[in-house]
Amino acid sequence: MSLAADVLQGNRRALARLLTAVENHSPDAVEALTKLYPHTGQAHLVGVTGSPGTGKSSLVSQITLALRKSGKTVGIVAVDPTSPFSGGAILGDRIRMRDLSGDPGIFIRSMATRGSLGGLARATANVIRVLDAAGFDIILIETVGAGQSEVDIAGHAHTVLVVEAPGMGDDIQAIKAGILEIADVLVVNKSDDQRAQNTIRALRAMIELSSSRQEQTWINHHGQLTAVLASPDAPSEHNGTHWEVPIQATNSLSGEGIAELIEILDRHRAYMQDNGGLAHRRHMQVVAEVDALLSETLLAHLLDRVDRSRLATLIERAVARELVPQAIVELLIGDFL
Amino acid sequence: MSLAADVLQGNRRALARLLTAVENHSPDAVEALTKLYPHTGQAHLVGVTGSPGTGKSSLVSQITLALRKSGKTVGIVAVDPTSPFSGGAILGDRIRMRDLSGDPGIFIRSMATRGSLGGLARATANVIRVLDAAGFDIILIETVGAGQSEVDIAGHAHTVLVVEAPGMGDDIQAIKAGILEIADVLVVNKSDDQRAQNTIRALRAMIELSSSRQEQTWINHHGQLTAVLASPDAPSEHNGTHWEVPIQATNSLSGEGIAELIEILDRHRAYMQDNGGLAHRRHMQVVAEVDALLSETLLAHLLDRVDRSRLATLIERAVARELVPQAIVELLIGDFL
Repeated sequence: MSLAADVLQGNRRALARLLTAVENHSPDAVEALTKLYPHTGQAHLVGVTGSPGTGKSSLVSQITLALRKSGKTVGIVAVDPTSPFSGGAILGDRIRMRDLSGDPGIFIRSMATRGSLGGLARATANVIRVLDAAGFDIILIETVGAGQSEVDIAGHAHTVLVVEAPGMGDDIQAIKAGILEIADVLVVNKSDDQRAQNTIRALRAMIELSSSRQEQTWINHHGQLTAVLASPDAPSEHNGTHWEVPIQATNSLSGEGIAELIEILDRHRAYMQDNGGLAHRRHMQVVAEVDALLSETLLAHLLDRVDRSRLATLIERAVARELVPQAIVELLIGDFL
Repeated sequence: MSLAADVLQGNRRALARLLTAVENHSPDAVEALTKLYPHTGQAHLVGVTGSPGTGKSSLVSQITLALRKSGKTVGIVAVDPTSPFSGGAILGDRIRMRDLSGDPGIFIRSMATRGSLGGLARATANVIRVLDAAGFDIILIETVGAGQSEVDIAGHAHTVLVVEAPGMGDDIQAIKAGILEIADVLVVNKSDDQRAQNTIRALRAMIELSSSRQEQTWINHHGQLTAVLASPDAPSEHNGTHWEVPIQATNSLSGEGIAELIEILDRHRAYMQDNGGLAHRRHMQVVAEVDALLSETLLAHLLDRVDRSRLATLIERAVARELVPQAIVELLIGDFL
């Protein structure tokens, strides 16, 4: 039986094996992904992002336990785009999850960057697909930090949950502005902290100030392919309904606010389904993925055929300032096409 | 006379006009860049990065004023990779620089993301080249935040200066670990803050702990082309000398520590020149740029020839889960090659 068939039957060892193949971009993975693709699209994909120290990982554990109590199965993908530098802080957090891992209704996968960020984003997309096809009801995609990688990874989710902790200064808030714009739901964790109410007030003010629509933000980041294709309108544009970003206080130690948060997640999923938001995000994500895969594969074809000593000579001439990089590109593409 | 010739003669209006052309990727810019390229390589390129609230922009102003006093000319490129989201916090900071802008020995350019981050990184590289060819002695490249874009932009600099402020919690330090590894010089600004000494101690401990060499970090991020080319060794590998990352306390209000910081910058430039570090960074940067330009240009060629209605149909089939994105890519490349 094929790896894909084993995964569809709920075989956990096959699942783990396929995920490793996917992370290594092995040919087996391509075949299995093709078979699994029609089985995807059932899971609710929830992105969870926020700075280290917000208690994000404990929150993910609490959400998971609560979902399990209501009979739902949960896949967790923990992505650390900073790990080539810092050595993977998020992986350490996973230790806390050990008590979850005996439950067959939960599957946890940690991912770190190997090589390029683009490679990580694509591997993450495929890992999510495999878990989706494997039948998990909800997939939590946990990322750390603030930056383009968050936005890319959030692009895979139906619902993006941004976690904040009380008492962060205004300086930090400034850098967070970008992350707020991708949030469907805001969580202020550590609600027992006396500064929690202040943070909630500050976040509410920031949300009200932010006039730009988040769907627009996604579109700006989809590269050349978007310009060629007629983009579908963001659903908020041709539809009267509007999603007010809720701010939920939680305490991942006492469990306070977790039940309310899960209700909000359900409500957001229903909203996205009703107003066409799911279909829109899905379309944008496919376009972005094809764009990235196309340029990467084209380059691989060119490099496959390139004369390496000629390439090395051209690079050296650019280093010596005899040739601009653009000129090298034209020469190489001229040879290739 | 051509735009390039005017820029070489020190015409400021031509310079501003060319920079706009460069940012818009206009054909004029390509021609001028080709002419200017042999005139580049004289300036000392200094990256300045750090979170909002560290007083980074005031520090850049102070460094600039001090450099001007010693007769050096200064170009400032302020890059805000977060601005498609947050609306460009760094641009606001520029207002403080108004008092610098009457001096013809200073040229300030603010850049924000239009479209992709890759596009911003490339435009930044070209803006730096133009200022370099225009004869500025030192070019300060100021970026905000923490993420891949910092690393990319830092890749253009000979000397990377990371600015910290006193009193940042351990949580924040964790995310900063990545940024520390790209630092050639650390600055603890706001040295009058009573917590400054603690921050200096914490940073020193982090530097001593970090065993990985920064040159290695660059190499990991240079994409497919690096794998094809034989990479030159990082200079630290075949050379006995070693750069101890200095930590300099500064106060951008009183000017304390600025003279010492400028001495450190000079010392680092001399070190990089002596041990081959400059040549190595330059090589890696050319490779990264050719890699990015190649994939982008190849994709542009393909999209130029693609049947748009066929492309749209394929995308819709992927959205409907009938076709994996990888299959679309193979079909399109099959048509193209």
